[in-house]
Amino acid sequence: MPKIRTIQSVSLDVPASEQPNLHNRWHPDIPSIASVKPGETVKIECLDWTGGQIGNNDSADDVKNVDLTRIHYLTGPFDIEGSEPGDLLVVNITDVQPFEHSPWGFTGVFARENGGGFLDRHYPKACKAIWDFDGIYCSSRHIPGVRFAGLIHPGILGCAPSAELLQTWNAREGELISACAQSHPGQIVAQPPLQTNAHAGNATGELREKIAREGARTIPGRPEHGGNCDVNVISRGSTTYLPVHVAGAKFSVGDLHFSQGDGEISFCGAIEMAGIITIKFDLIKNGMKERAISSPVFRPGDVAPQFGPSRYLTFEGFSVDESGKQHFLDATVAYRQACLRTIEYLKQFGYSGEQIYLLLSCAPIRGSIAGIVDIPNACTTLGLPMDIFEFDVSVEAERVKNRSLGSCPIAE
Amino acid sequence: MPKIRTIQSVSLDVPASEQPNLHNRWHPDIPSIASVKPGETVKIECLDWTGGQIGNNDSADDVKNVDLTRIHYLTGPFDIEGSEPGDLLVVNITDVQPFEHSPWGFTGVFARENGGGFLDRHYPKACKAIWDFDGIYCSSRHIPGVRFAGLIHPGILGCAPSAELLQTWNAREGELISACAQSHPGQIVAQPPLQTNAHAGNATGELREKIAREGARTIPGRPEHGGNCDVNVISRGSTTYLPVHVAGAKFSVGDLHFSQGDGEISFCGAIEMAGIITIKFDLIKNGMKERAISSPVFRPGDVAPQFGPSRYLTFEGFSVDESGKQHFLDATVAYRQACLRTIEYLKQFGYSGEQIYLLLSCAPIRGSIAGIVDIPNACTTLGLPMDIFEFDVSVEAERVKNRSLGSCPIAE
Amino acid sequence: MPKIRTIQSVSLDVPASEQPNLHNRWHPDIPSIASVKPGETVKIECLDWTGGQIGNNDSADDVKNVDLTRIHYLTGPFDIEGSEPGDLLVVNITDVQPFEHSPWGFTGVFARENGGGFLDRHYPKACKAIWDFDGIYCSSRHIPGVRFAGLIHPGILGCAPSAELLQTWNAREGELISACAQSHPGQIVAQPPLQTNAHAGNATGELREKIAREGARTIPGRPEHGGNCDVNVISRGSTTYLPVHVAGAKFSVGDLHFSQGDGEISFCGAIEMAGIITIKFDLIKNGMKERAISSPVFRPGDVAPQFGPSRYLTFEGFSVDESGKQHFLDATVAYRQACLRTIEYLKQFGYSGEQIYLLLSCAPIRGSIAGIVDIPNACTTLGLPMDIFEFDVSVEAERVKNRSLGSCPIAE
Amino acid sequence: MPKIRTIQSVSLDVPASEQPNLHNRWHPDIPSIASVKPGETVKIECLDWTGGQIGNNDSADDVKNVDLTRIHYLTGPFDIEGSEPGDLLVVNITDVQPFEHSPWGFTGVFARENGGGFLDRHYPKACKAIWDFDGIYCSSRHIPGVRFAGLIHPGILGCAPSAELLQTWNAREGELISACAQSHPGQIVAQPPLQTNAHAGNATGELREKIAREGARTIPGRPEHGGNCDVNVISRGSTTYLPVHVAGAKFSVGDLHFSQGDGEISFCGAIEMAGIITIKFDLIKNGMKERAISSPVFRPGDVAPQFGPSRYLTFEGFSVDESGKQHFLDATVAYRQACLRTIEYLKQFGYSGEQIYLLLSCAPIRGSIAGIVDIPNACTTLGLPMDIFEFDVSVEAERVKNRSLGSCPIAE
Repeated sequence: MPKIRTIQSVSLDVPASEQPNLHNRWHPDIPSIASVKPGETVKIECLDWTGGQIGNNDSADDVKNVDLTRIHYLTGPFDIEGSEPGDLLVVNITDVQPFEHSPWGFTGVFARENGGGFLDRHYPKACKAIWDFDGIYCSSRHIPGVRFAGLIHPGILGCAPSAELLQTWNAREGELISACAQSHPGQIVAQPPLQTNAHAGNATGELREKIAREGARTIPGRPEHGGNCDVNVISRGSTTYLPVHVAGAKFSVGDLHFSQGDGEISFCGAIEMAGIITIKFDLIKNGMKERAISSPVFRPGDVAPQFGPSRYLTFEGFSVDESGKQHFLDATVAYRQACLRTIEYLKQFGYSGEQIYLLLSCAPIRGSIAGIVDIPNACTTLGLPMDIFEFDVSVEAERVKNRSLGSCPIAE
Repeated sequence: MPKIRTIQSVSLDVPASEQPNLHNRWHPDIPSIASVKPGETVKIECLDWTGGQIGNNDSADDVKNVDLTRIHYLTGPFDIEGSEPGDLLVVNITDVQPFEHSPWGFTGVFARENGGGFLDRHYPKACKAIWDFDGIYCSSRHIPGVRFAGLIHPGILGCAPSAELLQTWNAREGELISACAQSHPGQIVAQPPLQTNAHAGNATGELREKIAREGARTIPGRPEHGGNCDVNVISRGSTTYLPVHVAGAKFSVGDLHFSQGDGEISFCGAIEMAGIITIKFDLIKNGMKERAISSPVFRPGDVAPQFGPSRYLTFEGFSVDESGKQHFLDATVAYRQACLRTIEYLKQFGYSGEQIYLLLSCAPIRGSIAGIVDIPNACTTLGLPMDIFEFDVSVEAERVKNRSLGSCPIAE
Repeated sequence: MPKIRTIQSVSLDVPASEQPNLHNRWHPDIPSIASVKPGETVKIECLDWTGGQIGNNDSADDVKNVDLTRIHYLTGPFDIEGSEPGDLLVVNITDVQPFEHSPWGFTGVFARENGGGFLDRHYPKACKAIWDFDGIYCSSRHIPGVRFAGLIHPGILGCAPSAELLQTWNAREGELISACAQSHPGQIVAQPPLQTNAHAGNATGELREKIAREGARTIPGRPEHGGNCDVNVISRGSTTYLPVHVAGAKFSVGDLHFSQGDGEISFCGAIEMAGIITIKFDLIKNGMKERAISSPVFRPGDVAPQFGPSRYLTFEGFSVDESGKQHFLDATVAYRQACLRTIEYLKQFGYSGEQIYLLLSCAPIRGSIAGIVDIPNACTTLGLPMDIFEFDVSVEAERVKNRSLGSCPIAE
Repeated sequence: MPKIRTIQSVSLDVPASEQPNLHNRWHPDIPSIASVKPGETVKIECLDWTGGQIGNNDSADDVKNVDLTRIHYLTGPFDIEGSEPGDLLVVNITDVQPFEHSPWGFTGVFARENGGGFLDRHYPKACKAIWDFDGIYCSSRHIPGVRFAGLIHPGILGCAPSAELLQTWNAREGELISACAQSHPGQIVAQPPLQTNAHAGNATGELREKIAREGARTIPGRPEHGGNCDVNVISRGSTTYLPVHVAGAKFSVGDLHFSQGDGEISFCGAIEMAGIITIKFDLIKNGMKERAISSPVFRPGDVAPQFGPSRYLTFEGFSVDESGKQHFLDATVAYRQACLRTIEYLKQFGYSGEQIYLLLSCAPIRGSIAGIVDIPNACTTLGLPMDIFEFDVSVEAERVKNRSLGSCPIAE
């Protein structure tokens, strides 16, 4: 009776940069590390997205000083036998688990000058929260009073781009960089290829140089292959249909999250962890054309935390920014407003702004687009599941001032 | 045993502009038409948002020629006894129903030159679908093969602005108009006050003129009071906490929707209808400050259509637009991509693009913000509930070419 | 545009026994009152199951003195064109509503000597609660502190039996009566045909006599046709497949419930009401054989109240009865224990036993079979949705002694 | 950073009878094997309920010949520090997992003459199905065409009885045995104490003899402590409140199930497995009296498989048995009818009766009590989640005769 084989393991003790079965760029020439047959189920081990830079301790200095050129160590690429450009790779995730010997994760807010995040104008200092896993539930000594089940998932999964697609990516993101260099000098708007700390898997010599020179960064996700999409419902039981761009598909996965709120707003916002993902692979030959799918499509799993709909206290946000300026149908601005309002609300119960910022990043909040056509205001909503709190946070709840809710580490 | 009183009725036979208990501007001086005690439950009748301009027929000419200065006839304003600025008005919706004698609604796509919509570059012609209500379910002769239960709700609810707030609105939207007049000449980016066809309720003479001159338009929703927020889960059983800005609150409601998809993308996108809403009102005195709520907050009802999570076929959209241009963390662009991809997908089953555009506007699709921090791509998702179709629309489903799915009226 | 026709109306002002389109017996010869085509949707009005014997007042005398020979006035029978024995009648309920002019219902506990109920040894006196409807929600002045949405449904629906089937019913229930006459003298174990107050629809003369003489009572439900099955999820959106036993099907419906808990334990236990049901009929020809269905099968609707699974405080009950006697795998005894334990638990919060008995009968509690094979104890569970209470009823909740929870009328 | 400690491990290689930290009787004098503090979370390993008698193979001989005196090897008892009779032990299950090296389980039907089951008159031969675990999903080579996520849980958990309670159990079950010896000679109606193969933990000598002589069997569950209650929603995230009867509580747990249908009808009916359960313990001092709880009460976890309500094809069953005999309000008979009808229905799709009997025992079916007061028929329902099948099993689905659905091993 064959048990499921672990097709690739990782080490928490060896630097990520020295593990040849990882990589942190998207490039068609990164050599495949193993091969899977359609229909096969395999286990794949992954590091946390920083490759172990963040420690289980009570200081946010490691988050403040994180080296963002050394991130997103993905495990792969894997060849799926028989796959060709134009196929759809079917990725059925049947399990994701933290390592049994490492049952913890972290959520961070990056310093505004090193990474930043969705609310960095308001919360410019680095801070973090450590989460302890207790089965499928988690809690944090840095954010007391909450406990919830994780909708565990990978933040990143995708197939390698073709050379042409890679060129497209680099060109269009380069154009944005160029355009903004004039309009918004000094603002980082995209991450161009960067040789520093590029990890090209087990490529060596000239090939390694080429990959480092050309390889697309793992930030952001991209429409043609998915990648860093941070979709929290691509969890256990989900099936994702991924476009294939190169022979063999060259699938990679990483950036495991124990839990993540919609938006992953603090950027290092999920409960980041190392662990093991179990995937059943399949192929739909020529599926991109025959199924009219050019960008990832998925079905969530049928197992998820369930709160009653009326248990979501929901905040509205519109595209009028916090300075009172009117934007045009900007759902991003609108969602930021919903986040800020939720923070102001929850502060009444005794939390600091930083604690809630961290919490909204990683807890199972729902970010929805309500109306997107009534010019000039997009309307978005942020649903806060009240049942994750150990006390009553409803509008009607008594405000208890002296509740002891500790603090999260903040780096000066 | 007192039954619930109907505090205001409307007529489907009298022009909306001639019914004195309606209004289509937000202004503190529109006279209240009735008074409600906190704790009281009342029924309020509403017209459809166009005041009856669209007919139950098979031509889209009425949609093409809709007069958009004559829209959003709200019922109200109602005084809630004892309410003062700074309070929260508690709006508990216990029922919404179409009129028994008028069990139908409509979804429209406006012509690009008259209103437009989220996808107007792709679908510039006016088209529409009529929906017949069969209890809590609906179906359309113009989009065969789908049937679903409505999550029935008002598109618009809110309290009147104070004079100061009104001034703020007009100023900030005016600034956007001014700014865009230069950068995007010819594009309509906001709706400034307009005297044409302003309906000031039962105000007369000089007051009427003033309201018409100053009153804020009902497009869009606004953060300080809600208004046109188009949140589909503010349905039966929901409780919304609305900031109060004037003495008496002056609450108004209208724009009833039998069903609406997240985003209401076609603008006339819900299943628009006339009907009756039942509301229980309450007050939280000084709630804006004491509960830290400055923008509407709500709890959905506990009754809703339930599809298993794995029954949502979900499409990803990123902020790379359909021309291939890279945008910076633009969730609006990203959601448009998800919509366009869903349309391409469903076309395979025999629908026209217009039919699906209409369908995505009004069916219970879910628009979510997945990741909003991985520069430069926001990632959004559009969840399509497969169980609303009478045939299998999964990725694995056989594509049946000759399925007869009719057509929706399109105006040339 | 044809609206849905009301195929049969009723009057709340005329005695049920004098309305010719009602009947309270199952018999193949009751004349059909109207005809429906397969594919047609119609509205059918119904009286409450007692035909108006219970009043909206604060005395339980009407419940105490209820005449149980004058119950279950069903509306029908209706012919479905083309249906023949062996077919399946497809009953798709698209709406159920109380009459707008009569927005209330009642729950009763019958006196032990006149009807009784599941817990009549413990609560032998008649009592009742009146429920006021507020949209899809209800509350009772007799059981303060609870409010919930109704999962509205008919308690009774079915097709007429054939003459042979009717004979089978009368024979097997007669055998039980005979057998128990010796073993349990004095206990009423089944309701044989009874001429007193039989309502044979618009039959007259000899036919009327025959029906009264032979017709099966509407208590209980029976496997071959359903009838009085009291399944609360046969609500809006549900589809039920009913065996057809006579030409035309002769479908009848009644006993509408605004809400009912699993088990309907107090017998008059749902929130009983008069109202209107909307049904779409269809046929599956020869479906009993070709679909292997000999007893009703159904799919619930997709709209229902949703509480998170962890919001059900759940009580276990085993087949050891309240006197300590061991029964053999008796799920009925086991469920009684779960009910009794829930009552003891809720009494701590200030309710009387009678109030809770009424509440468990009509609120959306879940009765489940956990284990039914571990001799000699069947294990059942009763899930109590905590969100229907306006205060905290969790195990951890503080017991507030002086909460004012009124009382329900009890007849001496 | 302390990780969760494994408080007790088991071996799959040593006979269960030789592992001193297991036991298979309920008795107050079985020595505790470890101690836990209130508030502590621990991992506990468990064998499968047969202690390894059933193999991962394609023969049902091991099921046929199972030794039912050697079952229910529970892990424990554990002392919870400070607990005394009258307390409530709070058992919060945060995880249940199969052993990583043993990712499989089994479902069996016992031979009628050795154990039997709910439908043994219809399916008298032993048969079995082996299930392979793929993350949180499972499938079986013996029942092709189905795949589902497990709602993983322990079948047995409880605290030791006091000496007085043990005496009560033995007396009342003994009375049933005595009573039935006359009325139903030859039928096994309960399991009295039995010295053969009693496992008294690490007790020795006279104490061991005493426990073997007096100890209550692990079949069935009992109202005062729970035990073998087979409640499938006591899964991850659930909190159970257990009465404490002896100093230290002496909690034991075992009989892990990967999945189980309501009723566990085939008796060896869950997907039985060995594995690890993680529990957080707490105490409510004097809770039995102060919380009015005398029998186990629980709240399910908030994570569970979710199918839309309309995806449950639901079969009704009444208390008229398969021979046509009328029983009096017998929910057990009624549920048996629902099971038998579901089997007849699913046979049409190509399964054997034995395959479906096994499937209904272990798949996430819902067994509910609909009406329990309409004499003489109790009405129960069995909800079959259609989404666990890889093909369409709706009433409308085409019956495909030649679908290859293999077979399960049956012992002659």
